Amino acid sequence: MGKQRHTGADLDPSFASDNVAGISPEILDAVERANHGSALPYGADAESTQLQQWAQQEFGPQAEIYPVFNGTGANVVALQAVLPRWGAAICSAQAHVNNDEGAAPERLGAMKLLPRPSSEGKLAPEDITEELGVQGFVHAAQPLAVTVTQSTELGTVYTPDEIRSIADVAHAAGLAVHVDGSRLSNAAAALDCSLADTTAACGVDILSLGATKNGALAAEAVVVVNPERVAGADYIRKFSMQLASKQRFLSAQLLALFGTDLWHRHATHANEMAALLAERLRQVPGVKVNPPSVNAVFPEVPTEVAERIQSRYLAHTWDTSASGQPVLRLMCSFATTGEEIDRLIAVAAGT
Amino acid sequence: MGKQRHTGADLDPSFASDNVAGISPEILDAVERANHGSALPYGADAESTQLQQWAQQEFGPQAEIYPVFNGTGANVVALQAVLPRWGAAICSAQAHVNNDEGAAPERLGAMKLLPRPSSEGKLAPEDITEELGVQGFVHAAQPLAVTVTQSTELGTVYTPDEIRSIADVAHAAGLAVHVDGSRLSNAAAALDCSLADTTAACGVDILSLGATKNGALAAEAVVVVNPERVAGADYIRKFSMQLASKQRFLSAQLLALFGTDLWHRHATHANEMAALLAERLRQVPGVKVNPPSVNAVFPEVPTEVAERIQSRYLAHTWDTSASGQPVLRLMCSFATTGEEIDRLIAVAAGT
Amino acid sequence: MGKQRHTGADLDPSFASDNVAGISPEILDAVERANHGSALPYGADAESTQLQQWAQQEFGPQAEIYPVFNGTGANVVALQAVLPRWGAAICSAQAHVNNDEGAAPERLGAMKLLPRPSSEGKLAPEDITEELGVQGFVHAAQPLAVTVTQSTELGTVYTPDEIRSIADVAHAAGLAVHVDGSRLSNAAAALDCSLADTTAACGVDILSLGATKNGALAAEAVVVVNPERVAGADYIRKFSMQLASKQRFLSAQLLALFGTDLWHRHATHANEMAALLAERLRQVPGVKVNPPSVNAVFPEVPTEVAERIQSRYLAHTWDTSASGQPVLRLMCSFATTGEEIDRLIAVAAGT
Amino acid sequence: MGKQRHTGADLDPSFASDNVAGISPEILDAVERANHGSALPYGADAESTQLQQWAQQEFGPQAEIYPVFNGTGANVVALQAVLPRWGAAICSAQAHVNNDEGAAPERLGAMKLLPRPSSEGKLAPEDITEELGVQGFVHAAQPLAVTVTQSTELGTVYTPDEIRSIADVAHAAGLAVHVDGSRLSNAAAALDCSLADTTAACGVDILSLGATKNGALAAEAVVVVNPERVAGADYIRKFSMQLASKQRFLSAQLLALFGTDLWHRHATHANEMAALLAERLRQVPGVKVNPPSVNAVFPEVPTEVAERIQSRYLAHTWDTSASGQPVLRLMCSFATTGEEIDRLIAVAAGT
Repeated sequence: MGKQRHTGADLDPSFASDNVAGISPEILDAVERANHGSALPYGADAESTQLQQWAQQEFGPQAEIYPVFNGTGANVVALQAVLPRWGAAICSAQAHVNNDEGAAPERLGAMKLLPRPSSEGKLAPEDITEELGVQGFVHAAQPLAVTVTQSTELGTVYTPDEIRSIADVAHAAGLAVHVDGSRLSNAAAALDCSLADTTAACGVDILSLGATKNGALAAEAVVVVNPERVAGADYIRKFSMQLASKQRFLSAQLLALFGTDLWHRHATHANEMAALLAERLRQVPGVKVNPPSVNAVFPEVPTEVAERIQSRYLAHTWDTSASGQPVLRLMCSFATTGEEIDRLIAVAAGT
Repeated sequence: MGKQRHTGADLDPSFASDNVAGISPEILDAVERANHGSALPYGADAESTQLQQWAQQEFGPQAEIYPVFNGTGANVVALQAVLPRWGAAICSAQAHVNNDEGAAPERLGAMKLLPRPSSEGKLAPEDITEELGVQGFVHAAQPLAVTVTQSTELGTVYTPDEIRSIADVAHAAGLAVHVDGSRLSNAAAALDCSLADTTAACGVDILSLGATKNGALAAEAVVVVNPERVAGADYIRKFSMQLASKQRFLSAQLLALFGTDLWHRHATHANEMAALLAERLRQVPGVKVNPPSVNAVFPEVPTEVAERIQSRYLAHTWDTSASGQPVLRLMCSFATTGEEIDRLIAVAAGT
Repeated sequence: MGKQRHTGADLDPSFASDNVAGISPEILDAVERANHGSALPYGADAESTQLQQWAQQEFGPQAEIYPVFNGTGANVVALQAVLPRWGAAICSAQAHVNNDEGAAPERLGAMKLLPRPSSEGKLAPEDITEELGVQGFVHAAQPLAVTVTQSTELGTVYTPDEIRSIADVAHAAGLAVHVDGSRLSNAAAALDCSLADTTAACGVDILSLGATKNGALAAEAVVVVNPERVAGADYIRKFSMQLASKQRFLSAQLLALFGTDLWHRHATHANEMAALLAERLRQVPGVKVNPPSVNAVFPEVPTEVAERIQSRYLAHTWDTSASGQPVLRLMCSFATTGEEIDRLIAVAAGT
Repeated sequence: MGKQRHTGADLDPSFASDNVAGISPEILDAVERANHGSALPYGADAESTQLQQWAQQEFGPQAEIYPVFNGTGANVVALQAVLPRWGAAICSAQAHVNNDEGAAPERLGAMKLLPRPSSEGKLAPEDITEELGVQGFVHAAQPLAVTVTQSTELGTVYTPDEIRSIADVAHAAGLAVHVDGSRLSNAAAALDCSLADTTAACGVDILSLGATKNGALAAEAVVVVNPERVAGADYIRKFSMQLASKQRFLSAQLLALFGTDLWHRHATHANEMAALLAERLRQVPGVKVNPPSVNAVFPEVPTEVAERIQSRYLAHTWDTSASGQPVLRLMCSFATTGEEIDRLIAVAAGT
């Protein structure tokens, strides 16, 4: 499976990832509005207080929210907060925590990941069951958490029922449930549900809530949904170097996105642009592509189409199809425009 | 020595720290200007390229700069990059790395700190010499780096000669030299020298370059001055969860501050406001205060003055003087105004 | 795949593992002989000096040997000594380091393991090649070492050529090569070669040399074969809590085993007993079993045979065969006797 | 303060430390007696069961005992078992955990130590109180355990009342209490009390129980006195690489020492030899020496006496007296003989 490398500095990055987009104007406005006078640092500010209120409204009165800088930070803070020193986390082999965080979970969290093969990036309840055999076996890292990505690294989406099934099995065996929600907005928009519907309502204990890929400058949050399964989140955020001094500006970004319907509008736009992109690509001769679930499109393209695209665009060869053709990954964001799609299609079609 | 606690949410935070200030308008403008179109993530963007050029101009053609999110991140990335698994870092007992980073150096960097008592927060060459007795002793953590804070946590400043003396002793014994430059701007402004004059020019190998306390939203950088003593900084930044996806916005902040004379203007203002604050405080009956070296003022005040101030302001009792009176810490920033000082003095004087 | 659990305290443990055996009389004699007068601790003793000489004779004049307490300790010290902070180690998914060390590599060594599926516990050169795609990719843990187990956890043996092929690919890509030689003696005896023939002579850089399973009380060693690829082994052993104060008694055990032909005699005996056990089991109706390569026998047995054996013996159900029958793991040691085999066969046959 | 270095391989090591002694004959006999037949590994053996019974008799019915390989292992396992990820341990600046464990607590346990200056190696209740100011302060490592060494690295002994006072203050503030009992036998013998009298009876929660320095080959134990303050000791021992496969031989050593009065006889002998050594040294002209509390003697000697001793013996210069004379550290063990003392005195006296 292909790895994202940023070598082609002269290539158009527009479809390389959803993090190539800039800052949503509404979010930047919110940062500016928060920029007046002095404010207590480290979260004792008005915006952070308001964000905490939002989190309780969305995820339940017991919820706690801890803004952090980036997604890896959110994941590793959250997993440390649900795992004792001897704990391990079950994840998909395709998970970002497993492949793309420089081994931060292992190095900084001193935890073992227990990756499970999966064709579509999704775990199933059986994945948990099959790891439970070592419970109580002192020689093995103890599976005490499961982490699922919503939407997944492969552009798939768990239904609320699927999350609930995983959570039920996990809880029955004493495991905590974490969602890597780096793209939770895209999933919720695709499912036409709230952020809580696919997390708190399904038994999720702790959540990495992503904002950067959906229009923020740099802001994510750890949301503790179930404080009874979580310990020391505030201390862990601090020593994990994810506590911002001027936290008001992180909270302002998160509020602008989640305290309004902006998250939904942005995610819906990104998903729709991906649907449009897939539809247009399907009309290019030789291209096969499934309708995307969220904002990632994985077209199987003839080699010459791949070459045309990759001569102009940074576009990752994600896989090779059964018939030997390259499968690209193209991503849309809140900022993707129809004109950008037009240009990509023209390049792909060689017109 | 007093600890900063943020309990008084109804108190005026204006002098509690230099991180209570917001974002410098010039820096926020720069973020806005960087917010156009798509850009490659993780540093492969135009602003980051330009920042790298600036770093080479300032710190030498071999210099490398790695933007990070916060000061703890910068320090722990930098120290990991100069220490092998068995290394330890000599620091002042008053150092931020020792007291205020939640043990991130120990927990995430797996390093031991070797704190040295110091009355003014400054190390001397003898502090290094006295730790060298364990070199080669397999039972002891090996002192392989020294970290000094410029300006220090106690508001003092190393002269270039003092840094150079430390670096000479350190290098002669095989240790790398790190500067925690969270407030390097204030020190350089006070010394009337460039950022490099008190770091690269004095033999410093690696540097945490602070911007947040001098007007940024959230941006610091690790500057590798001497790549021969540093290994793996890019990998270490990544797994230390300090690599921003939309790095252009961190680089834009750093460029706005350091690529112009803004850092100098802001730091000079903060230092001058502190000098003014000290001068005005000295006129309050019973108050004793030394002229500040940079932007921190440590007045010894009668108990009733402390009570008046602390009934209205978040102001940390930093210490108790020899005569039993409270010593407060008051800090000025790039945003401190004369009116704010007037108000504080009126409260202090009980007028 | 079955996990070894020690719940049946009333069951006969004789075939449960090779670590159920006691201490070889020759080794215990050597401990007694070393027990006279005072000796410098931590390796500055006569036995340790003699052991170092042996290591140089066996593995080359540049070799260094570091006695440790147990196999996990040897592996985690060795891997830390060849990996920088950002390094990862490629291993078989069946490897002891991956499954049976309580995640010590991740927790204490802060390293990621990159497990590769394998049917027989053996890595192939392609396993390395396929992990190299992330070299230089800052988001991924960097594969900088490969660890192979000789003989493997599945009772298979690498030929010297197989090790050499792996080492060649690894070295060409800049990776260090580690052998987990917890049962190296059994492999060397089976291959009819020296300990170095299948390690140092094949390009192995560092080695965990096992003695406990071959008759020692508690003694293993890290052997640095190629000091140019290894750093800080002495400091790493110390902080990894594997430096014995009365090291003379560890060195005495290792010398008694490896400084004579005792390792070969013991390992040959264990291997031969396993061959005999397999031959005898094959005569029990319904049992299928391959001739063992070393001292582990994996018979596929009818369910009633498994029940008879497991009613009397601690015998791990290792797997289920394609035809649905249990596959047991039975191990022989230097101390296994023909009478013990007779008794086991009688139980298995229900006679 | 002097550091123990083992460079003089041609010097007599007899008084360099109590770990220069060999194995007590009774303990070696016990190892031999345990060496019959097969036994389940990892603690499911008869000797380990018997050891657990002894621990309950000595330390209370709730006690648990976990044999480990060495003292650093015992300390770091114990401290991990009482500290969450964000915890720190208060210790004497002279503590073995702080100076002589290669930073294993920080590197492997990810904990910060909070060292307190102390003239005699002993903590006082005020040492705890003074560290409590940061409780709840998210920027500081949280003091959640205190560790005291009994007898101390400076040869002093806590009275049971002193331990109790520390434990009371610690418990009132929510801290767990650990004793590094590497030389607990010497302290208990000197105090004429049981092992529990100065630990469990004083509120100690967890204990490193030393045997190696008092005659074992290599055996220590973590004793959990109060399971309510301890979590995961078995998993932590495993991933800390301190779980022996042939544990019966560690348990046999511990039983031989502690299950009889051997610990008391050996420790009393060592203490008496130290008293004799001090008395004899006092008769050497110019030598000043306090009566030792346990088995360590710290004579202040004229320079020429030091030179005579150190030309023949490995004897550490521990300190320099107020009058500028060297202070040596000389240690006696269970194996020290009167003849050895005669020889040392003859050398010291130059006769």
